[in-house]
Amino acid sequence: MGGGQTFGFLGPPGTFTQEAVLQVVDPESAELVYYPTVEEVVHAVERGEVARGMIPIENSVEGTVNASIDALGFETEGLLIEREVILAVRLHLLARAGAALAGVKEVYSMPHATAQCRRWLRENLPDAKIIAANSTAEAAGRVAYENADAAAIGPNLAAQLFGLEVIARDVTDHAEAETRFVVVGRDAAEPSGRDKTSLIAFIAEDKPGALLEILQEFAERKINLTKLESRPTKRVLGEYCFFIDLEGHLSDEHVAGAVAALEPRLARLKSLGSYPRAVGRLDAERLARRARSAKARAGSE
Amino acid sequence: MGGGQTFGFLGPPGTFTQEAVLQVVDPESAELVYYPTVEEVVHAVERGEVARGMIPIENSVEGTVNASIDALGFETEGLLIEREVILAVRLHLLARAGAALAGVKEVYSMPHATAQCRRWLRENLPDAKIIAANSTAEAAGRVAYENADAAAIGPNLAAQLFGLEVIARDVTDHAEAETRFVVVGRDAAEPSGRDKTSLIAFIAEDKPGALLEILQEFAERKINLTKLESRPTKRVLGEYCFFIDLEGHLSDEHVAGAVAALEPRLARLKSLGSYPRAVGRLDAERLARRARSAKARAGSE
Repeated sequence: MGGGQTFGFLGPPGTFTQEAVLQVVDPESAELVYYPTVEEVVHAVERGEVARGMIPIENSVEGTVNASIDALGFETEGLLIEREVILAVRLHLLARAGAALAGVKEVYSMPHATAQCRRWLRENLPDAKIIAANSTAEAAGRVAYENADAAAIGPNLAAQLFGLEVIARDVTDHAEAETRFVVVGRDAAEPSGRDKTSLIAFIAEDKPGALLEILQEFAERKINLTKLESRPTKRVLGEYCFFIDLEGHLSDEHVAGAVAALEPRLARLKSLGSYPRAVGRLDAERLARRARSAKARAGSE
Repeated sequence: MGGGQTFGFLGPPGTFTQEAVLQVVDPESAELVYYPTVEEVVHAVERGEVARGMIPIENSVEGTVNASIDALGFETEGLLIEREVILAVRLHLLARAGAALAGVKEVYSMPHATAQCRRWLRENLPDAKIIAANSTAEAAGRVAYENADAAAIGPNLAAQLFGLEVIARDVTDHAEAETRFVVVGRDAAEPSGRDKTSLIAFIAEDKPGALLEILQEFAERKINLTKLESRPTKRVLGEYCFFIDLEGHLSDEHVAGAVAALEPRLARLKSLGSYPRAVGRLDAERLARRARSAKARAGSE
């Protein structure tokens, strides 16, 4: 186990999270290890079982995102966000080679994906039975190995890994959604000139204006916040902390100044580190090549 | 359709959302109508097909909560939150009468519930196959009607509706979680002396300090915020709005003053209304009686 080239992710293989992994690592030069939950990815990084881990953090079809920010906020110490990856969530209808839409009698889909494709399914496959799966990958696997008359709802990568064909593209009802993933590790990223910093501010007591004092420190220094979310601290209902993403690097003078001003006035200011903001995706061809060579083993529980 | 005594909810029957409905209406005097998605509940209220609707809004096992705040924020106009309900999320292992834990070969569970019970399952049912279901109610239904050797993970209400027994209580891995639901309708709630107000502030442009200006108005008037969350406006990545819950009623002088001060300075300030803060739950006996008489029909799509 261990070593610098192991990369954990929320599995199973064939999910959007693996697609995000392939954006940042070439599977030829890294060992991919998948885990059944976000918490287990984070704990595997903490134990040193993998060097880094990829978890979804905002607006995924694959599970609740609260699990990710809670794991980073309350369940680990010393881990940092090393970078972020933003992927468009595109779900397709996948079937065995040669299958036609008219012949699809059953559709395997995880409930979150089903909910996003309800109108499309009603209009295009009104008589198909919708069967729940635990992941988009499990859905694809059942079509590939068990049921020739079925189709699965899943991402491109699931089609590639299970040898299925896309028989209908972009079957979600709403305009393209995006999911933000983060790479969790132990290495602080060097300033790139285009960075974000993630902080968690724990408020000593629930009082009017507590958040205001925090924000004033950022505003005075012209620091732009890109995300702000209050969360219960998981102890007492009504006791809150704030997850804050801001533009800039902890080594920037104005960011360092805000942190220094805030620390003595908070119960705690936890830093998840600075990291480069997401940039463009890999081109489709390079990603397809990585997908073909992607192998992942299951992580120990 | 229509009428004052119809109540829509996120179905199917036997889910936590129906349990929340039974906290606030007696099914003897109201018609319950279930819908497959949060959006359809909200749209049914908007069309007048049901007078009110119950949707989960924070930290549910039953689906993404973003769908709820997005539906209220971006997809409807004129609807108000009339009250809130907070329920403890308790999941049990349900099986047919007389079944023993040792005989359980398969467990039906929706993926979100499975994720919350993973450790318990590993320790207590290491050899059981976990089969995905679309809801906790579907899981219970499959045990009741299809598979005598299986158990389902679900809430108490699912056991009652499907005639199952709880063979293991509280099978979730973490301390008790809570889910917050809201009743959506068209009637502004009168001040109760213990109220909350939900607002959505749309920011004209993404500039440092925009949020600060908003919060200053509340802080100056000693208004306590109970929730604050930034969300993309679903148009351009980086364009944000803020979902704000605060203590007080829109008819309170200080709340009205803050709203009046903010409105001209925002792209838009959308109010979801004022409503009483959640208080205690119904006692178990009264809830069990309501559960026994609960009938719900499917809503039209």
